[in-house]
Amino acid sequence: MTITVAQSGGPTAAINASLAGVIVAGQKSKQITKILGARYGIDGVLSDNFVDLTSLSEADLALLKQTPATALGSCRRKLTDEHYDTILANLKKHDISAFFYIGGNDSMDTVAKLSRLDSDIKFIGIPKTIDNDLPETDHTPGFGSAAKYVATTLKEIARDSFVYDVLSVTIVEIMGRDAGWLTASTCVLQSTGEVHLIYLPERPFSLDAFIEDVRKLHESGQKQVIVAVSEGLRNECGEYAGASAQSGKADAFGHKYLAGVGKFLENQVCERLGCKVRSVELNVSQRCAAHLASEVDLREAQAVAEAGVAAVLEQNANSVMMAIERVNAPNAPYEANYTPVDVILVANRVRKFPEEWINSSGNGIESIANDYFLPLIDGLPKHISL
Amino acid sequence: MTITVAQSGGPTAAINASLAGVIVAGQKSKQITKILGARYGIDGVLSDNFVDLTSLSEADLALLKQTPATALGSCRRKLTDEHYDTILANLKKHDISAFFYIGGNDSMDTVAKLSRLDSDIKFIGIPKTIDNDLPETDHTPGFGSAAKYVATTLKEIARDSFVYDVLSVTIVEIMGRDAGWLTASTCVLQSTGEVHLIYLPERPFSLDAFIEDVRKLHESGQKQVIVAVSEGLRNECGEYAGASAQSGKADAFGHKYLAGVGKFLENQVCERLGCKVRSVELNVSQRCAAHLASEVDLREAQAVAEAGVAAVLEQNANSVMMAIERVNAPNAPYEANYTPVDVILVANRVRKFPEEWINSSGNGIESIANDYFLPLIDGLPKHISL
Repeated sequence: MTITVAQSGGPTAAINASLAGVIVAGQKSKQITKILGARYGIDGVLSDNFVDLTSLSEADLALLKQTPATALGSCRRKLTDEHYDTILANLKKHDISAFFYIGGNDSMDTVAKLSRLDSDIKFIGIPKTIDNDLPETDHTPGFGSAAKYVATTLKEIARDSFVYDVLSVTIVEIMGRDAGWLTASTCVLQSTGEVHLIYLPERPFSLDAFIEDVRKLHESGQKQVIVAVSEGLRNECGEYAGASAQSGKADAFGHKYLAGVGKFLENQVCERLGCKVRSVELNVSQRCAAHLASEVDLREAQAVAEAGVAAVLEQNANSVMMAIERVNAPNAPYEANYTPVDVILVANRVRKFPEEWINSSGNGIESIANDYFLPLIDGLPKHISL
Repeated sequence: MTITVAQSGGPTAAINASLAGVIVAGQKSKQITKILGARYGIDGVLSDNFVDLTSLSEADLALLKQTPATALGSCRRKLTDEHYDTILANLKKHDISAFFYIGGNDSMDTVAKLSRLDSDIKFIGIPKTIDNDLPETDHTPGFGSAAKYVATTLKEIARDSFVYDVLSVTIVEIMGRDAGWLTASTCVLQSTGEVHLIYLPERPFSLDAFIEDVRKLHESGQKQVIVAVSEGLRNECGEYAGASAQSGKADAFGHKYLAGVGKFLENQVCERLGCKVRSVELNVSQRCAAHLASEVDLREAQAVAEAGVAAVLEQNANSVMMAIERVNAPNAPYEANYTPVDVILVANRVRKFPEEWINSSGNGIESIANDYFLPLIDGLPKHISL
């Protein structure tokens, strides 16, 4: 049988490990004789643009796993009725039995739609997003590496902030439009005083309360205040906190491109507190810093994809997304299982950061969340204070 | 004898390796019985704020070398006549024989001024700057790590840019106010097509020529254009290219804080070419990303400081900066020596990127520069294209 695989949505440091997982599982299986990759996501299926991956060598697969962003290319296309006939025709033309789509919420919508069509082809979603906002899975491949990048970088930026003996505020803007998982993961730096305030999109953001939080920290003797903010902060009326600084552009799914809440808050601190202040937008390295990938994340990204191929071969799975299930044995090292879940439970839905892990003031994270994040981050650098 | 060491100016990933070098050399020497660190640069001497580093353990020294930013703190103070008496008095109070100042152009000015005073104390400069703009040395500690961070990150951002099959421009803004060394070091990605245009402050920047350069690349079939720009780009009249986006704030030396040339060019491309465009400001991670430090850089940062201590003990050196001399044996592995140079030749001067290494169009770097940069960067990640 022939299988095909495509990648979609924003890049991650681990998405190619999932691609490698599909290829490795395909190469191992006696039933699978051909593995095709569709270029530029579902667009590659629409335009009959495939590349043969069947004979990728072990060395190439090793390189693939350490290459960030989608090696097959990506797209952001919302499917409409006019596309279905062409997609099915092109999949049938190549005699494809199973289609593996590596992506996030929108890609799971695509998987759900395709698997409702009249065909024998199996459609399987492989989760991927640095946002960690897919329901029905403990976490998403790509998130651990993004969290490792963000925490490592924030730890280093904190060092950079501590060098001058003056009152200062450093605001670090972190990706995550509607879910604050990535911003929240900086909580692993709370106990070492490398982040002092954390604001998520899960709580309405009050500019006055923020300024007051900073002022109080300065008054308490914390000269250099480090703040982690999600790009998606909104005020009580649901408007983006830095709306005036937004670009106004939107993608094919109607998501507005966000930028600027850090710069907005920087200007506010400057005007209202008058101290040294700077903002740092971590930007696209959050999703493509393969040089700092989490080993656990890479391993899981590959394993969940391999499990997806196995689910088709052994369980005749269809219309599912492969989920990661955390094995919670007390005092045991971190472990995970991979199981199929109905893709309709995932498509177009967002899993928010748990309310009960946000502190009562809405400006920090409860320490219990460290147990969730640390195994996924899989190691942080060690520094010394003199 | 007692020696003291301080760190100044902006952080780097390697400046603590130089601090470790002074401590290691001090611990090895029988003549040196006490090693004091001044907190917050020369401010620590002014305010008699010292920390005893004599007994730092091997484990602490190992941690110190992997800690970014100035572990002793830093300052940006331009010395004036009123400061000298206090500085000498506090150094004499602790019976200090030699003062090692790890810093850039401004710190070498401080070393030059202090060594002209009437005292027996030796003043030695240890070079440090990610800008690589100190005269009389082949390169500066801190630069190799910054270049490794910039090239690695740009390589990953290029991957991130290639995923969509549409015309796009990605503009990456790189530190370097007056000298384009760090921006130029991205030339190591030219031959692999991971950077297409490079603009340095050494050449007047023409917005029209830039737009034309991008347009030509798009027309030639290069869909995703990657551009590296220095934060310090100026137009033909000497005004900063993104002046309208500048903060207007200046530090104690009158240097304006630069930011925004990337964002400025992003808006210009959007208006004039109408294609997908984004800008990424690499920001402070360029100077504090210790997780990606160049091993060569760390080794040299320590060695140059150790050589500084030896120069005092063995040659009675004073009023010098320790320089790095590249050993240019043909076909041999990269090697360097460390020698004292008159600090007055370094103080307040800037070494620009060589004119002859900039291409005739002023939008790229001659490939000969790769031989200069690659040994300092000391390794880049490998990726695959399918």
